[in-house]
Formats: sequence, structure tokens, C-alpha cells
Amino acid sequence: MKLSDIYKNLRKDLRLVERELGESVQSEYDPLKHSSVHLLEAGGKRMRPVFVLLAGKFGEYDIQRLKYAAVPLELIHMATLVHDDVIDDAATRRGQETVKAKWDNRVAMYTGDYIFARALTIAATIENPKVHQVLSKGIMQMCLGEIEQIKDFNNHQQTVLTYLHRIKRKTALLMAISCQLGGLVSGADTETVRRLRLYGYFVGMAFQITDDVLDLVGDEKELGKPAGSDLRQGNVTLPVIYMLKNGSNEDREEIIRYLKDGDERGPLDEILTRVRQSEGIAWSQTLAERYLNKALAILEGLPKGEARSSLRLIAEFVGGRSF
Amino acid sequence: MKLSDIYKNLRKDLRLVERELGESVQSEYDPLKHSSVHLLEAGGKRMRPVFVLLAGKFGEYDIQRLKYAAVPLELIHMATLVHDDVIDDAATRRGQETVKAKWDNRVAMYTGDYIFARALTIAATIENPKVHQVLSKGIMQMCLGEIEQIKDFNNHQQTVLTYLHRIKRKTALLMAISCQLGGLVSGADTETVRRLRLYGYFVGMAFQITDDVLDLVGDEKELGKPAGSDLRQGNVTLPVIYMLKNGSNEDREEIIRYLKDGDERGPLDEILTRVRQSEGIAWSQTLAERYLNKALAILEGLPKGEARSSLRLIAEFVGGRSF
Repeated sequence: MKLSDIYKNLRKDLRLVERELGESVQSEYDPLKHSSVHLLEAGGKRMRPVFVLLAGKFGEYDIQRLKYAAVPLELIHMATLVHDDVIDDAATRRGQETVKAKWDNRVAMYTGDYIFARALTIAATIENPKVHQVLSKGIMQMCLGEIEQIKDFNNHQQTVLTYLHRIKRKTALLMAISCQLGGLVSGADTETVRRLRLYGYFVGMAFQITDDVLDLVGDEKELGKPAGSDLRQGNVTLPVIYMLKNGSNEDREEIIRYLKDGDERGPLDEILTRVRQSEGIAWSQTLAERYLNKALAILEGLPKGEARSSLRLIAEFVGGRSF
Repeated sequence: MKLSDIYKNLRKDLRLVERELGESVQSEYDPLKHSSVHLLEAGGKRMRPVFVLLAGKFGEYDIQRLKYAAVPLELIHMATLVHDDVIDDAATRRGQETVKAKWDNRVAMYTGDYIFARALTIAATIENPKVHQVLSKGIMQMCLGEIEQIKDFNNHQQTVLTYLHRIKRKTALLMAISCQLGGLVSGADTETVRRLRLYGYFVGMAFQITDDVLDLVGDEKELGKPAGSDLRQGNVTLPVIYMLKNGSNEDREEIIRYLKDGDERGPLDEILTRVRQSEGIAWSQTLAERYLNKALAILEGLPKGEARSSLRLIAEFVGGRSF
């Protein structure tokens, strides 16, 4: 089985999810339409719906019920993307915060809120209160993760644990919840649901670490943005944290200086070269692999079959970051 | 009965709500703690919890159930206040958007998101799916209202209908939902719940119109902020809309010029004097009274008693804006 086979097998149901995603953000409001269409066209891998559907195979699979989890989870992901863009965008026009920029930001903020609320309206169709509890608690944790990330911008004293805690909330949690809700909605048993959630969590951790490594070692063409974007924004990721602890004095001083310079910082090229030559990259990749192995191990306790093979394949692809 | 008697009668239960509000925004995170404490201390009239509790008297009153609506509704109100402050605040530091200001805004945005998600976590305790549907649909509409308001900033061509539609979403809806959910949670019958919701809606409309008039005619001491703040921000409210349609040519030209000047606009004094002398004020007050009368009329269909008298009193006070 190849990765494309997973999408092929789920094609009909993913199309239905796609259609309902499109309908859910239909609006007579121009700003909403604009940003929603933009997001929908951006497409993406729809990882969260895929997780919901595959997890749903471990219970009584019914797309007409699962869609009430799959669509909201993708919408929540979209809402976080919209909020991530808020203000960042204005910063590029620094010193000239025009009325328009100011309003665009406000519109983006409320558009995020709207997509978020829309997600909840759809999820509200599910009667199981456990689903709502998992969802709202998850969102709360995600918000805390975002706040933590802001707090830790340019902070050269953060630890590996801080980082892991942060990416758990920022990324792994929503994937964990996607798998969990797929299981819950389809009425899978408690142990299965627990394993599905853990699988999503481990895959999410591996995914984010791999993504953060790629941001440092990838080239602009591959990434679709300049390499080192995280560091440029002051987002200190795992390889850099490793270097700050274990690198040469010169490496550490260079990075600390760069982070301290904040908005005044110069070009990143030299630091990027240092990071790429450091042991932080391989060390981070090893940690990502450990999470992947945990994901694969937890799958062993689930019934064999196409769904399990699909989840295994996704985990392996996340490791190779070809997903 | 006086207004203070309502609070006296509900004192024990409002204290419980207050305590749970405090606990719900407890957090180990400094930025959250800071902004939450600030909001809690700002206090406010807790109108939404008061509506929930009074509406709850029309069914089987149980504070241990009603609190799961009262606390979230106040939290949602708080979350909208936090989001209202985002970016506006940065604008006061125009041209100098420092990293700190940028981050403060992001933190405020995610703090709003967090309080919002926290509200949903608490509401998730309620098993009735109708409650979740009402709540999430309401929030969606509120977001659209905020976006509409931004779209209509400085727009001199908006109509009375645009305005009414906007304040419905911005203010009246959450009050309507508060009354509705109080009824729903306490198991009141459908007709009672319908009347409660309509009452909240009418009172909310009257409240917002009165508030908007007061922003134009009040003095700084009374308002706690300079008079005319709405207009200064480009928020065109009912008396001004009336003048734009029915005022003298000179009045209209002055206002249009002021709105068009945007960020370059000069002092408001002269325009404020014109508005205060216009018929727009009395006309708006009359419309507020009409909404109040509708609120009072809809109450007539509810069973007599202390709860009904309390709702009547609140409506009357909203009219006098002494609430």
C-alpha cells in the first residue's frame, strides 16, 4: 500500500468532507468569503479528517456521523491558521500601520473566531457530551500552547521539555483528538479509543519535530518560504535548543546575540550554516524517530486490517516528511 | 422592588457564579492571570448571569445546573471584550509597533480564544444538545456582527436597518441567548423559552441604542471615557445615521468629511455639538423605548411573580440607563 492508496480508499468520503467544508464557510460576507476560499483552495493534506475517518474504521464506520467530527476538526485547524496570520502580517508593514492594515487584522481575528464557532455548530450535532468535553478542553490547551510560544519567542534559556510541552499543545493535541473522536463517534471501545488518541499524539509530535528540522535544513523551493523562518521570527526550535545547551561557545554566543537583537537582527545565513553543521539536527531527527516508533508500537495493540496499515503508513511518511 | 433588590435576592447564587468565574480563569500563565484578574475586578453588572438565573425561575430552578450556563455566558462576554481590545490598543502606539506591542496583541487574541474555549468546556457539562447548538450558532452570529461593524466603520451610507442588524448581533443576541438558556436548562416549556429569548433580544436592542446615545450626549465623568468615542473610532451609531439622512446639508457635509478623514481627522467638538442639537438623539431614544415596550409586552405572557417583576424592572432600568 502507498500513501496515495489511503486517499484513494477514502476518496468518496473525503470528497463529502471537502464539500461540507466548502459549504460550511459559505458566507455573504466578502471578507469571510475571501479568506475562507483562500484557505480551502490552499487545500492541504486534510490530515485531521483522514485521522477521523481511519479511526472511525475501528468502530461502526458511518460517514454520516463521522463527518460531524471530521469537518469541525479541519475547521478548527483552519481557524488556528487564520489567527496565526493575524498581526504577523501587520508586522511586515511595520511603522506604517494603516487603518486598512489595522482593520484587516481585526477582520482576520473575527474570521478565525467565526470559523471556530462554525466548527462548534457542526460538532454540536453530536449528542455524546464526551465529544464536546474533549474538543473544548483540547482547544483550551491549544490556546495555552500559542501563548506559551509567544512567551518563549527569542528565549535562549528554554529547555527541551519546554519545547516538547509547547509542540504537544500546538500540534500533537489536535491530531490526538482527531483520532480519539473518530473512535468515540464510531463507538469503538475505551481501550481502542485510548490507543488511537496516543497514536495521534505520537505522530503529531514526530510531525512537528520533523517540520521544525526541515525549516532549518530545507531549501526555499522545497519549503515554499525562506529557510530558517522560525528562527527569524524568534521561534526557537529543537535543533537550536540542543545547540544552545551542547554547542561550542562560539555557536552559542552567535545564536544568543541573534535572538537578543530582536527586530534589529541581521541576516541569518551564518547562523543557519552553523545549525546545519551541528549535531542538533541529527539529535532532533532521532527524537522524532523515537516518537514514530512509539506511534507504531501503540498501533500493534489495535486490530489488524486496512485501517491499521493506513495509520502505520501515515506514521512512516511523517517520519520521511514526504506526507 | 428596586434594582438592588434583584441582586439581593440572587446574592447567594450570584456569589457562587462569581466564585466559579474566578476559578475558571485561574491559570499558571502570567499573561492570562493578568488579563483575567483585570477583567474580573472590572466586575460589571453580570447582566448575562442575572438573566440566566431569573429565566431559570420559570422552570425548575437549580443553581447547580444553571451555573453551567451562567458562567460560560459571562466568560463569552469577557472573551469578546478581550478581542475588542486587540489591535485597537496597538493603534495608540501607532508608528511604533514594537515587538512587545505586537506580542501583547497576540497574547490578547489567544487569551480571548482561551476564555472562549474555557466557556465551552464548562457548557459542555450540559447534556442537552440544543444548548450547544444555540450557543455555537449565537457565537457565530456575534462574530459576523463584529466583522460587519468593521466593514461599516466610517461608512456614511449605512441605513438604520444596517445598524439594527449589527447591534442585534453585537449585543442583543447574547442577552437573548442568556434568557433562552436559563429557560432551557431549567426545563421551562417551549412557549416560555421563546418569550424569554424575545425579552432578552428586545432588552438588548434597547440597551445598545441607549448606550450609543449616551456615548454622544454623556459627559466624560459619567462615561469614564471621552464623549463621542464611537464616532472618533469611526463607529457610526443611530443618532448620526439619522442625521446623515435627515439633517441639514451642512450637518451632513460636516459628518461625511469627518468620517472620510479617517486617521487624519481633527477634533470632534463641533460635530458633537451638532449631533447633540439634532433630532437624531430624541428619535433614537424613541426607538429604544419602542424596544423596551416590546420587552415589557412579551413579559405579560409569562407567569406573574418575583422573577417576572425582576425582568420588568431590569427592562425599565435599561431604558433609564441607570442599570
